[in-house]
Amino acid sequence: MLEVGRIARRSRTVTAEDIELFSQMTGDHNPLHYDSEVAARTTFGGIVVQGGVTSGLLNALVAQDLPGPGSVFLNTDWSFRAPVRPGDTITAEAEVLEVRRDKPITRLRTTITNQDDVIVLDGSALVYTFELETDD
Amino acid sequence: MLEVGRIARRSRTVTAEDIELFSQMTGDHNPLHYDSEVAARTTFGGIVVQGGVTSGLLNALVAQDLPGPGSVFLNTDWSFRAPVRPGDTITAEAEVLEVRRDKPITRLRTTITNQDDVIVLDGSALVYTFELETDD
Repeated sequence: MLEVGRIARRSRTVTAEDIELFSQMTGDHNPLHYDSEVAARTTFGGIVVQGGVTSGLLNALVAQDLPGPGSVFLNTDWSFRAPVRPGDTITAEAEVLEVRRDKPITRLRTTITNQDDVIVLDGSALVYTFELETDD
Repeated sequence: MLEVGRIARRSRTVTAEDIELFSQMTGDHNPLHYDSEVAARTTFGGIVVQGGVTSGLLNALVAQDLPGPGSVFLNTDWSFRAPVRPGDTITAEAEVLEVRRDKPITRLRTTITNQDDVIVLDGSALVYTFELETDD
């Protein structure tokens, strides 16, 4: 079962389509995510993806891998440290920091790095994991 | 310009399609978001949307309204207080808590409520706002 120190990782390559999907879902049409000329004139130097695209990989990691299916976030405290661009391959990592005995609640250290091992997001998350009853 | 106490709001109705878009973007296929029978047997009592779908409305609010275009999150500290279901109309609110003088950094109180005025998310965000240079 879950023990302190357990680690899981999940990677994906972020694409320009992710920006579209996120905008469609949220209504976020920030020029930093769409206008390459405007974005190039900022210190980012070009288009970046929305923070929610980056952090979404942690949603998947928690729901699929650690703690796994039935998990939802109670709290997320995330710092966005460096830009993520379309084409970047990002890796999310979660490490169990604390397991509650009285409730199915887990505290995780959460980090996302890019293909150059630059930390693009770090912080922590508190996760509640429902026991899922199926017919099987 | 930005002053402490300024407030902005943005609403949208969350749909089952948002769950699909978020899963496509992230790889999150948690049964709580897909399997109505399994989800019905949890205390949620039915399918809920991913936390990232809910919080995405704050991405839009910050990027479009307050502080507005050129804004990106430096940090988000969000607690998910109640489930959000497809069909719910959620309203995100941001209030300026602090405006840095030396850097274009704003601290916001961030809250999302549903159509019954139940708080589904609350917390705070630190936002950096780039000055966008256009050709116009």
